[in-house]
Amino acid sequence: MDLWNCPVVPPLEDADLAARVQHRLDSKTKPVGSLGRLEALALRLARILGTEMPQLQAPQMLVFAADHGLAARGVSAYPVDVTWQMVENFLAGGAAVSVLSRQHGIALNVVDCGVARDFAPRTQDPEHKLPQAGAPRLWRRKVAYGTQDCSTGPAMTAEQCRLALRNGAELVRKLPGNALLLGEMGIGNTSSASLLLARLCNEPIELVTGKGTGLDAAGLARKVAVLRQVLDFHAQVREPLQVLAAMGGLEIATMAGAVLQAACERRVIVVDGFITSAAVLVASRLQPAVLDRCVFAHCSGEPGHARMLAHLLADAAERPLLDLQMRLGEGSGAALAWPLLVSACAVLREMASFASAGVEGALAH
Amino acid sequence: MDLWNCPVVPPLEDADLAARVQHRLDSKTKPVGSLGRLEALALRLARILGTEMPQLQAPQMLVFAADHGLAARGVSAYPVDVTWQMVENFLAGGAAVSVLSRQHGIALNVVDCGVARDFAPRTQDPEHKLPQAGAPRLWRRKVAYGTQDCSTGPAMTAEQCRLALRNGAELVRKLPGNALLLGEMGIGNTSSASLLLARLCNEPIELVTGKGTGLDAAGLARKVAVLRQVLDFHAQVREPLQVLAAMGGLEIATMAGAVLQAACERRVIVVDGFITSAAVLVASRLQPAVLDRCVFAHCSGEPGHARMLAHLLADAAERPLLDLQMRLGEGSGAALAWPLLVSACAVLREMASFASAGVEGALAH
Repeated sequence: MDLWNCPVVPPLEDADLAARVQHRLDSKTKPVGSLGRLEALALRLARILGTEMPQLQAPQMLVFAADHGLAARGVSAYPVDVTWQMVENFLAGGAAVSVLSRQHGIALNVVDCGVARDFAPRTQDPEHKLPQAGAPRLWRRKVAYGTQDCSTGPAMTAEQCRLALRNGAELVRKLPGNALLLGEMGIGNTSSASLLLARLCNEPIELVTGKGTGLDAAGLARKVAVLRQVLDFHAQVREPLQVLAAMGGLEIATMAGAVLQAACERRVIVVDGFITSAAVLVASRLQPAVLDRCVFAHCSGEPGHARMLAHLLADAAERPLLDLQMRLGEGSGAALAWPLLVSACAVLREMASFASAGVEGALAH
Repeated sequence: MDLWNCPVVPPLEDADLAARVQHRLDSKTKPVGSLGRLEALALRLARILGTEMPQLQAPQMLVFAADHGLAARGVSAYPVDVTWQMVENFLAGGAAVSVLSRQHGIALNVVDCGVARDFAPRTQDPEHKLPQAGAPRLWRRKVAYGTQDCSTGPAMTAEQCRLALRNGAELVRKLPGNALLLGEMGIGNTSSASLLLARLCNEPIELVTGKGTGLDAAGLARKVAVLRQVLDFHAQVREPLQVLAAMGGLEIATMAGAVLQAACERRVIVVDGFITSAAVLVASRLQPAVLDRCVFAHCSGEPGHARMLAHLLADAAERPLLDLQMRLGEGSGAALAWPLLVSACAVLREMASFASAGVEGALAH
C-alpha cells in the first residue's frame, strides 16, 4: 500500500527537561516518591507538553463511530442499529461518555467515520457558523456505510483506509487545546481489535477474543471461530496498513490517523480501552514514538486488552491509571481517568516546596 | 474503659432500594455490568444516601493532626516539627491535599487534635463569625501536646481518649454536606496504625510495619523492634478503646469519633490510606455497620494497608478505587479518588435508559 502522508513523530529527546521536572517533584512538600504513579504521570505530561509547568487545556473527546460488515456474522450481542442509535445518544447527552465528559468539562466530538446511516443536520454541527457552546458536535467524515465483511474480502479498500487516516489527521488539526481523549462506537469493533492484535502481535486469537458487549459462552465460541476464518482468509497480510485495511474498522483507521497527528503536535493522548488501544497499536507500528505521548486510562475487562498493553508499554510506570473492570468503551474510561491527569499537573504546578513552605526535610542518618 | 456516648450505627436494611437501584443501572444505555466497579460504587452510594438518585453535596475533607510521643524513639524519617509545619502548609494551600481539594471543590478542614505546638489565630478560623469562603479552616480540638511515649506507658489516658472521640463526633455534627473525606498528619502515626492493626487483628508486627515517610532498611528494623516492645508492654490490652488509648494517636481517636458520627448520620465516608483505615478499624470494632458507609479510596504503598483491608472488606467490589502506589497520607488519596464518586452518582442520575434514548437492547439468542 502506498504510504499516505503520515505525520512524523520524533522521539522525545529531553533528558534535561526530565531531570528538571524530577528535581521539582522531589523538592515538593512530601517524602520523595510518595505520590507514587501520580508523579510518573506528572513527569510524562511535562515531557509531552515540553514544560516543567504543564497545564492541560480545552480537552477534546473524539468518539469515532463506524459500522462493521463482520457484524452480520453474529459476532456481537447487539444489533447493528445500535451504532447509530448510540451516536444519537452521545449527541443527546445521555450516554456514559456524555455524562462523564460533561462532568469534567471535556468537549465531546462524535465522528461519523462510517456509520451505516445518515444523520440529520443539527444546528450545533461544526459546519454551522455558530455551534452551540458546550454542545456535543458531530463531525461528518463518513468514508462508507460501514466496512465490508472481512471474512470474505478486505474490510476496506486501500483508498478508503488512506482517506480515513487523512480524515483523522485533518480533524485533529482543527481542534483547540492540547489533549485528545479517544473513544469509539461500532457494533462489532471488538472483533476488529482482536484481529489487529492477533495479526500484528502474533497473539493466539482465542486468547485475545472476549465477550464484547456481552456474548454468552456459545456466542464467544462462534465469535472465535469467525475470527479464525478471517485470519485464515488474510493469511498473507502482514504490513500494518494492509492489516488495518483488511481487518480493521473505519473508526479505527480514522482514529489511527488522529493519533498520529496528535502525537506529531505533542498533544496528550488519553487512550480508553481495547479498541482505542488497537488504533494506537497500528499508529505505533508506523511511528513508534506516538507511545511517548499516550496515557493509558484504564485496563479493560476485555481479556485482550491486558495482552495488548503488554506489547505497548515499555515499563510499569505506564500501566493504565484505573482498573475498574469496565468494558463499555465510548471513551468512558478515558473521561473517568481525566481528573487524574489534571491532578498530576496541579501537583507539579501548585504544590509548595520544602523551602517555600518552611518545612524541614528528612533526617540525616 | 467506660463507654463514651458512642453513636449507634444500624446496618443498612434496604434490599428493596438496592433492587431498584440495580434495576436502574441495568436499564441504562450500556451492556449490563459494563461499567464494572463504577456500578458497584453507584449502588453503594445510593444505599448510603438512601436514594435512587444520589447526589454528593458539600464534601468536607477533615485532616486530623497530632503528635506522637513514640516519635522520640526514632520511628520516623522526619523530625516531629514537620507535623505543625505541614499543618501550616495545609492552611497556606501548598500541600498535596490542599491542591487536590481545591481542584475538586472539597472544603479543607484541618483539626488540631494534639499537635505539640500552638497555632496563631487566623481570620478564617471557624471561631470567627465570617470565615473566608473556600479558605482552609483550622479547628482547635487539642487534647494534649501530643501523646506520651507508648513504649513506657499508655499513649493517652482513658479520659483523653474519650475526649478525642467526642471531639470528632461533635465536629462532624457541625459540618454541612453529606460526604466526609478522611485525612491525617502526624509524624510517627504509621507506627500507631501498625500497632492497632497488629493487636486488633492479630497480625505479626513485622508484616504490617513499613517505611512510612521513607525509612531505610536499618530504620525499618529499628521501627519494628520498637513496635514489638510496645506490644509487649501492653500485652494485656485487648479491648478496642483500651488498645486505642494505649497505642493510638489523638488524631486517630478523634477520627474514629468522626467516623462513628458520620456513619450514624449516613454521610459517605471516603477513607484515605493506612492511618485513616486504622481509625475506621477501631470504629468498626465498636459499630460494625460503619463499614457499609465507607468507600476506600486507594490502596497505600504502606505494606500493612493491604492486610488491613483484607480484614475490613467483605468482598472484592469494595476494594479501593485506586492503586497508584501512593503513601503520602494527608487525605491525598481520598481527594484524588473523589471525582470517581461524583461520576458514579452522575451515571445513576444522568444516563439515559434504553427506553428513553430509543436504543435497542441485546439480541435474544
